[in-house]
Amino acid sequence: MMDSLLVKNVLLDGARTDILIENHRFRSLNAPEGTVADEAIDADGMAILPPFYNTHTHAAMSLLRGYADDMPLQKWLRDYIWPYEDKLTAADIREGSRLAVREMVKTGTVFFSDMYFDIEETIRIVQETGMRAAIGVTFVEAHSKSQLAEKLDMLSHWSDPSGGLITLTVAPHAIYTVGPDLLVRCSETACRLGLKLHIHLSETQKEVEDCLREQGTTPVRYLDRLGVLGPEVVAAHVVHVDDEEAEILAARGVTVAHCPCSNMKLASGVFPYERLRKAGCRITLGTDGDSSNNNLDMREEMKFAALLAKVSSGDPAAMPAEEAFAIATRNGAEAFGFDAGVIAVGKLADALLVRLDDERMLPCHHLLSNWVYAAGSSCIDTVICNGRILMKNRIL
Amino acid sequence: MMDSLLVKNVLLDGARTDILIENHRFRSLNAPEGTVADEAIDADGMAILPPFYNTHTHAAMSLLRGYADDMPLQKWLRDYIWPYEDKLTAADIREGSRLAVREMVKTGTVFFSDMYFDIEETIRIVQETGMRAAIGVTFVEAHSKSQLAEKLDMLSHWSDPSGGLITLTVAPHAIYTVGPDLLVRCSETACRLGLKLHIHLSETQKEVEDCLREQGTTPVRYLDRLGVLGPEVVAAHVVHVDDEEAEILAARGVTVAHCPCSNMKLASGVFPYERLRKAGCRITLGTDGDSSNNNLDMREEMKFAALLAKVSSGDPAAMPAEEAFAIATRNGAEAFGFDAGVIAVGKLADALLVRLDDERMLPCHHLLSNWVYAAGSSCIDTVICNGRILMKNRIL
Repeated sequence: MMDSLLVKNVLLDGARTDILIENHRFRSLNAPEGTVADEAIDADGMAILPPFYNTHTHAAMSLLRGYADDMPLQKWLRDYIWPYEDKLTAADIREGSRLAVREMVKTGTVFFSDMYFDIEETIRIVQETGMRAAIGVTFVEAHSKSQLAEKLDMLSHWSDPSGGLITLTVAPHAIYTVGPDLLVRCSETACRLGLKLHIHLSETQKEVEDCLREQGTTPVRYLDRLGVLGPEVVAAHVVHVDDEEAEILAARGVTVAHCPCSNMKLASGVFPYERLRKAGCRITLGTDGDSSNNNLDMREEMKFAALLAKVSSGDPAAMPAEEAFAIATRNGAEAFGFDAGVIAVGKLADALLVRLDDERMLPCHHLLSNWVYAAGSSCIDTVICNGRILMKNRIL
Repeated sequence: MMDSLLVKNVLLDGARTDILIENHRFRSLNAPEGTVADEAIDADGMAILPPFYNTHTHAAMSLLRGYADDMPLQKWLRDYIWPYEDKLTAADIREGSRLAVREMVKTGTVFFSDMYFDIEETIRIVQETGMRAAIGVTFVEAHSKSQLAEKLDMLSHWSDPSGGLITLTVAPHAIYTVGPDLLVRCSETACRLGLKLHIHLSETQKEVEDCLREQGTTPVRYLDRLGVLGPEVVAAHVVHVDDEEAEILAARGVTVAHCPCSNMKLASGVFPYERLRKAGCRITLGTDGDSSNNNLDMREEMKFAALLAKVSSGDPAAMPAEEAFAIATRNGAEAFGFDAGVIAVGKLADALLVRLDDERMLPCHHLLSNWVYAAGSSCIDTVICNGRILMKNRIL
């Protein structure tokens, strides 16, 4: 097992330096000449950047990439996605997770927050890869009593086989698939076990209308009334919220996982970025599953987030490159409690080495602008997670 | 000089075949065993697809990539772009064009319609590369009489050094930089010489408001009143048009070059795709310059076009993958009069070979869906233009 890694001749904040990683953390950002390590990488012509933290996905849905597109949401779900999912075996989930994890690492992602089923298969694949993950134990109202008991038991007795890289989340699917009692039980379980609660929230106008009809209020207010909203909650999508709901989310410390491509492709609506940002919400980025995106490329997702924020607000200064970069990197790490997401001494060593000689990165007036607006994931040469190399020279 | 090329074991419409290219054209899509050619490519594991035709860009602005972002349009232009451009030398234009052309070929583009200055430099670079281009001779009101005469002379005496790959266009910059007399003169020149007329049109709300104030009507109606609109016109952006203007553009046979990333990034507005499509306009795709995109990646641009059409119309079925693909490929070829843009016997041999074993292309339920929504330009292995290989195994 490699304990130390020296990244030589790398560009950090515009200056060339050697970076020493020891015991999973950045030990020095300016290692003196003569520093030795178990392994060394010559990063000449490359910049070091924090990697991506994908805060909402369904990894094994890679199997459904391109299976059904360009149709209304209900038809998409009922005639294509759900019937396909009914036929998926554990072996399928394993293969789908493997494909997704390969895609994620090759596009610079070191962590994903997942919500799907047969999660043992996904956990095994993540463990083999050496990346981080928060795997959702999904709850829907349709589960039987014994299924529920099994899930709660799994959450209570979870022991991370990877020694700190993999955690579980309590993942009630959504307010329209989970009733109030089970939502509250999920919330209590998450709080008791110190786990995150991962849920789809206010994704479509239909969800809001149904909630108004059935609960007499909007989804965010409904969850708040149930006492479910708190700093452990990571709510995906959050497209349809008003000013007061944005303030409620901020006041409760909820993290909002923005999924621009999915919201655009399914025509769910336009994410109210400025509203949530001004309210003080922590905003992170997610790709959603391959079936509604249709990739897991967080670099592309950053560009979609920034350009959507600009055109929808009419303000080209909305979500500048630095903010798009923050929601895709350190905000996601923070939301899941990782001491990572920035290149700094003492932080967990998650990083990308990005080739600066690619045409898309030239000239380099502004590295983050090039990274957000111009780059392609193929500019990523090396992916480091927890001090360990997951990809080098684009080879996994 | 290679006269024939055999592309072996390639996937075309789901079936494996050998494709013979002779004298710049597809000769056979099902070449018999034993066919010989001057050169052969083994395309095992790859699909053949038409390449991209980028119908609006400013190639040499690659030099300004990331130079200024995330600010209001007028500040961007006046404080950054224009002062920078004032300092550009012919050598700069050459380097910028070289960088752009490399970026374009590596991302699968074989043609671009350009509008900039010092065009001799750009023409030389295009000629070296072997790609197609329509290079705009730009007109602005500020030009002196002798500059105008020189430009008109260049248009009249143009002789393509590449033997059919490079043409000129008459490119009055926009209605707010070119007065009515010069617009009419440009139009007459284009018609007389059988050239395209390339112009920015209805890009921003400000352009519409200024035109209403100064001309008493909207930009499209103003140009129509001048008699400038015809099938030779390629109008870039066309963001702000009403139903009647869409019908005028369709009736005159104008081609509309849609630039979604630029319109989103500069917050110019949302392209009225459904309105223009329903009116019967020919719609093509363009990246605009690297300074407002910030890349020339037409694959990414297709995804932006499709997802923007969906979210802005509220209809996930708007601009399905096939339409996004058409505007990026054959519509562009058609607009500029190339007998190309589809893989068919007798057509000019422009093509991409795309790797199907990349994670982003797997599984392959629907090739065009994967190509538009999931792929990255790094999936492109080989670029063929006019029967000649511009890139192979990702090497130019």
